[in-house]
Amino acid sequence: MILTVTLNAALDITYRVPRLHPHTTNRITEVSERPGGKGLNVARVLAALGHRTVATGFAGGGTGEALRALLAETEVTDALVPVGGATRRTVAVVDAATGDTTQLNEPGPVVSPAEWDTFLGTYRELLGEARAVALCGSLPPGVPVDVYARLTRAARSAGVPVLLDTSGEPLRRGLAARPDLAKPNADELAALTGSTEPLRAARDARRRGAHAVAASLGPDGMLAVTADGTWQAAPPHRIAGNPTGAGDSAVAGLLSGLVEDLPWPDRLTRAVALSAATVRAPAAGEFDTGTYEELLGTVRVVAPSPEARSVK
Amino acid sequence: MILTVTLNAALDITYRVPRLHPHTTNRITEVSERPGGKGLNVARVLAALGHRTVATGFAGGGTGEALRALLAETEVTDALVPVGGATRRTVAVVDAATGDTTQLNEPGPVVSPAEWDTFLGTYRELLGEARAVALCGSLPPGVPVDVYARLTRAARSAGVPVLLDTSGEPLRRGLAARPDLAKPNADELAALTGSTEPLRAARDARRRGAHAVAASLGPDGMLAVTADGTWQAAPPHRIAGNPTGAGDSAVAGLLSGLVEDLPWPDRLTRAVALSAATVRAPAAGEFDTGTYEELLGTVRVVAPSPEARSVK
Repeated sequence: MILTVTLNAALDITYRVPRLHPHTTNRITEVSERPGGKGLNVARVLAALGHRTVATGFAGGGTGEALRALLAETEVTDALVPVGGATRRTVAVVDAATGDTTQLNEPGPVVSPAEWDTFLGTYRELLGEARAVALCGSLPPGVPVDVYARLTRAARSAGVPVLLDTSGEPLRRGLAARPDLAKPNADELAALTGSTEPLRAARDARRRGAHAVAASLGPDGMLAVTADGTWQAAPPHRIAGNPTGAGDSAVAGLLSGLVEDLPWPDRLTRAVALSAATVRAPAAGEFDTGTYEELLGTVRVVAPSPEARSVK
Repeated sequence: MILTVTLNAALDITYRVPRLHPHTTNRITEVSERPGGKGLNVARVLAALGHRTVATGFAGGGTGEALRALLAETEVTDALVPVGGATRRTVAVVDAATGDTTQLNEPGPVVSPAEWDTFLGTYRELLGEARAVALCGSLPPGVPVDVYARLTRAARSAGVPVLLDTSGEPLRRGLAARPDLAKPNADELAALTGSTEPLRAARDARRRGAHAVAASLGPDGMLAVTADGTWQAAPPHRIAGNPTGAGDSAVAGLLSGLVEDLPWPDRLTRAVALSAATVRAPAAGEFDTGTYEELLGTVRVVAPSPEARSVK
């Protein structure tokens, strides 16, 4: 199975309003809820690709119960560890007139040292059956900032490949523990390295410890710097839609490609196609199967300039 | 005891953000939750005034459980009727930089005919012990629009005085059933009568069936048109703060005054003092006891112009 870790899981709530009027009262016309947090999004896409997937992390309170009830409706196996605090909510307010989204993110429950210890035990046990692990997202209060470094070392000791998708100090510390793959986006890469030039920044990030770096570049697709080579993959044309969850779908594409031992250009093709198919899907965080299958044949993978050599 | 009815109860969530940036991601620095919906606000203030208070209405789902757990921490007796749907949330996003609030209100669960019947049975039973009843707020989907008329008639048959605090068509229909007192605000009164002149509008509303009308006029206090006379009550100076819940505190002041058989000027003084003390309180929907007691001695009650005759 593939293991995904979501330390700051969330109950994702989407509110649709005809038009958002700040500083007044807004009546919501449509409410939807789903399990949220990057690792849970990745897990759902992996399961949709046919991989047996187990999700761990923390869940607690009434919001945690609601999240677990929604997770039980999916193919993902729930191995979340209970906490005393309540799972955070994220509220996405979608303005139907403009399509814009205003996002409100709660900070998440404080995790106690005892809860953290219980989690580490569960994590080590799950690694025994895992073919790969994804460590995803922000940290709740109370979790040590070097957590992803610790979890990466534990996975590498168990011989399980690690994909790291986080930002800021947890990313910086995590990279030093030499994960197999890091998947920052352009902003995270720039914050880490100080460079807004993706190729330079991805190479810098790789020198900080990751065996490979695959950076998601929004509509420009994905740039990978690996021991086997450097590639850029992009959809054949711009895809309009809601980018929520597109990065998580890319992680699922990369991780499934790693487990299936695909060559790098094929992993990138899958990641970019899934990502674009997520932008195209009507519900945030889902992916459109038709778009995915169509794009699998049309994503272009090239060596990034100055080499500018097509490999596909 | 005093009975309050909240058909569309809510889990009130308050988010504090340093500054709200619409159409971007906002990190919430502080989250608080409390039982919400007008009738539950009224019940909490009545209990704080020392009245035994019972709250009925509907609650369901995880949000309903959260609401009931919070209600159990108060002095209010929980007589909410379970429903299959989930209690709505209301989200108040407070911009710490400006003090402005952006309110997001979910519509509420659909109430089935069977659930509605169960509620009616509970309501009739509770009326047997009630000294007064407050019918408050908007209606959830599935509840008949003439509900407040029916509940008013049932209370009057049982000899229990009724205060009605709602808006739109439920107010219009409810008035026709002759409640003892209606408490619209200026906007609700204008929508009902077409007049933005409060005295004219309140008189019109009274002709539509209410035995008395006490209109809340925001910082201008309260205007009452009754069989015993007409009065306007106002705080001695403008009170700055958050007006959320001020109208509900006014309802609690009026209803406690009715049960204690106070003369009208004293009821209005209490309602205006409670309302202003709610504006002054740091948490929305609470009231500041010091401000309340101070204002009890300083609220001015006069006959509204053209009479302009001071009665206190």
